[in-house]
Amino acid sequence: MDHKGRQKRLRKELESSRLDFLLVTHLPNIRYLCGFTGSAGTLVVAPTKSLFFTDGRYTEQARSEVEGARVVIARKSPIAAAGEWLSSHARKRRSLIMGVEGEHLSVAQRALLAKCLGRGFRLREAPPLVEKARMVKDAAELSLLRAAVNLGASLFEHALRAIRPGVKETEVAAEMEYVARRAGAEGMSFDTIIASGPRSALPHGRASQAAIPAHGFVVCDFGVILAGYCSDMTRTVFVGQPSDEDRRVYAAVLGAQQAAVEAVKPGIGVGEIDQAGRKYLKKNGLDRHFTHSTGHGVGLEIHEPPRIAAGQSEVLQPGMVITIEPGVYLPGKGGVRIEDMVEVTGDGCAVLTPTSKELITI
Amino acid sequence: MDHKGRQKRLRKELESSRLDFLLVTHLPNIRYLCGFTGSAGTLVVAPTKSLFFTDGRYTEQARSEVEGARVVIARKSPIAAAGEWLSSHARKRRSLIMGVEGEHLSVAQRALLAKCLGRGFRLREAPPLVEKARMVKDAAELSLLRAAVNLGASLFEHALRAIRPGVKETEVAAEMEYVARRAGAEGMSFDTIIASGPRSALPHGRASQAAIPAHGFVVCDFGVILAGYCSDMTRTVFVGQPSDEDRRVYAAVLGAQQAAVEAVKPGIGVGEIDQAGRKYLKKNGLDRHFTHSTGHGVGLEIHEPPRIAAGQSEVLQPGMVITIEPGVYLPGKGGVRIEDMVEVTGDGCAVLTPTSKELITI
Repeated sequence: MDHKGRQKRLRKELESSRLDFLLVTHLPNIRYLCGFTGSAGTLVVAPTKSLFFTDGRYTEQARSEVEGARVVIARKSPIAAAGEWLSSHARKRRSLIMGVEGEHLSVAQRALLAKCLGRGFRLREAPPLVEKARMVKDAAELSLLRAAVNLGASLFEHALRAIRPGVKETEVAAEMEYVARRAGAEGMSFDTIIASGPRSALPHGRASQAAIPAHGFVVCDFGVILAGYCSDMTRTVFVGQPSDEDRRVYAAVLGAQQAAVEAVKPGIGVGEIDQAGRKYLKKNGLDRHFTHSTGHGVGLEIHEPPRIAAGQSEVLQPGMVITIEPGVYLPGKGGVRIEDMVEVTGDGCAVLTPTSKELITI
Repeated sequence: MDHKGRQKRLRKELESSRLDFLLVTHLPNIRYLCGFTGSAGTLVVAPTKSLFFTDGRYTEQARSEVEGARVVIARKSPIAAAGEWLSSHARKRRSLIMGVEGEHLSVAQRALLAKCLGRGFRLREAPPLVEKARMVKDAAELSLLRAAVNLGASLFEHALRAIRPGVKETEVAAEMEYVARRAGAEGMSFDTIIASGPRSALPHGRASQAAIPAHGFVVCDFGVILAGYCSDMTRTVFVGQPSDEDRRVYAAVLGAQQAAVEAVKPGIGVGEIDQAGRKYLKKNGLDRHFTHSTGHGVGLEIHEPPRIAAGQSEVLQPGMVITIEPGVYLPGKGGVRIEDMVEVTGDGCAVLTPTSKELITI
């Protein structure tokens, strides 16, 4: 991974943002910038170097993983150690501006940092510089994302084997998660959703102890974490014989998903992607049952920018990887969601998820 | 669950802490106080009532789960909605003091809250009132914790069946997690640690792709989440024939663990518990290889107060549930950790973990 290049580009952004330092506390950002995969640490990006502060549990791991930053093993909390180090080492000809990640620094941590920094520093909430860089994946990341997508997709056939009337939703999830783990996944990228029958109308119906009914949709939304990168996909199957209305709803969601995918290309605003799918559902009289946004970026985190939603201003660029996942939810009846991961390419897009989207009945 | 009683007791604490309101943003605290198990929401505890703000994804769930608070479905973020509601509904004869959870409110959320509250409110970091209440479990919680401990413990026999030279650590974890999931666990309470051979010397050696060697310790540290409550246990086994020195190290850790457990009773300071195990290791010349604290509280979170460590001032009370988990780590060689969950009773303690601690060789 190009950790040093990433830090170099970040330093330019810091300069344009008039920040002397950036205190990085969000773990995925730390991993992106210097490679550390543990659960405790703080990275200080200074004008000419970087320092990574962690605690004694991570001595060996930090030394083997971290690139482009000096590792400091702190006896106290990494944030306190970072504050004290800066307070004693930074040149203070003038008041220095320390950017912090407002979404990823607690009020208590901020107070501790201010205390340890002492005078001579001003804290300022930094723009999401690292998140912005992370939106566009480089070749190494794309390769890891593809591997995660493929492992994730391979779980669907296990879901198909497990889904039967009377089987508990959690039992289906257990089969999928078992295969993922044996194949080397660090874990699932979010709580596996197996939502059957009327529960399929819950957009966040994570697998429950409910038994799959003899008739109805089953929404399967799942993903793995492999070598740090997340996958995310949804397929909806039908147990029993779908009615004409069931088929119509499924076809409408599939059409909306395809319309949104077809709209994906560099230069287009994310709001237009969202609109493309919604318009298709509107033609089918189902748009008011599509109650969430169309998608989100995926990478080191399962949900990361850009959000594919109305009112968002981001414009797609080659190398972005996003989900396209419209759904229709009919309360008390059932729901359908279909989701692929899609890479924005130089002239359009590549659907990464290799799995058929035809309606499967069980 | 006694959600209303918990809120009632919290109101008294707010009064003594001179807080007019408490904004609860830490999800386990929200679950403890009003029963909501979703992933987005904010609870406002006001002098005579409580309000729970969440978003449209959780309409049904909030209405079925929340007790003792009025549910408000917000179109914007729950924190913004809470701020605006208070701003327009609270009587403002004087400046009102809003307690916030400093460890669980981000700098960005604090700024948003302050903006939405407008004038008439002062924000103050509240003491950890809910965490303090949560330290002492009530009967309903103890029953759920025992169920989680028993399910967790049942995984160990599956680990024993899976651990063989050449098998990957993640494969062992996969077997255990599969059983947990099929038995109804929501998930594991932390990344399963299967640390074999020299990796057993890593206190946080989560299961890796490494193959279990033909000779050496294997530390198995794992737990489940069942009905919201966590379990946590560690056993260390030996693959191959342990040397006298291996047996001596194991016996020392076991002795230390037993000494610490024997010290557990109401009225004793947590530092003394820590000391009891450490002293035993010192007699065996191994105390400097015990590099972490002795334990922690367990409940809705896998790590919660009290910390069982030197320098901590908490005193044990009946109903607290803690881990006792000394370990010895010999870098490059291997390590041993033995951990039980222990309930503080009226006159001593009850070890909840039902599993033998004799050294098992495979």
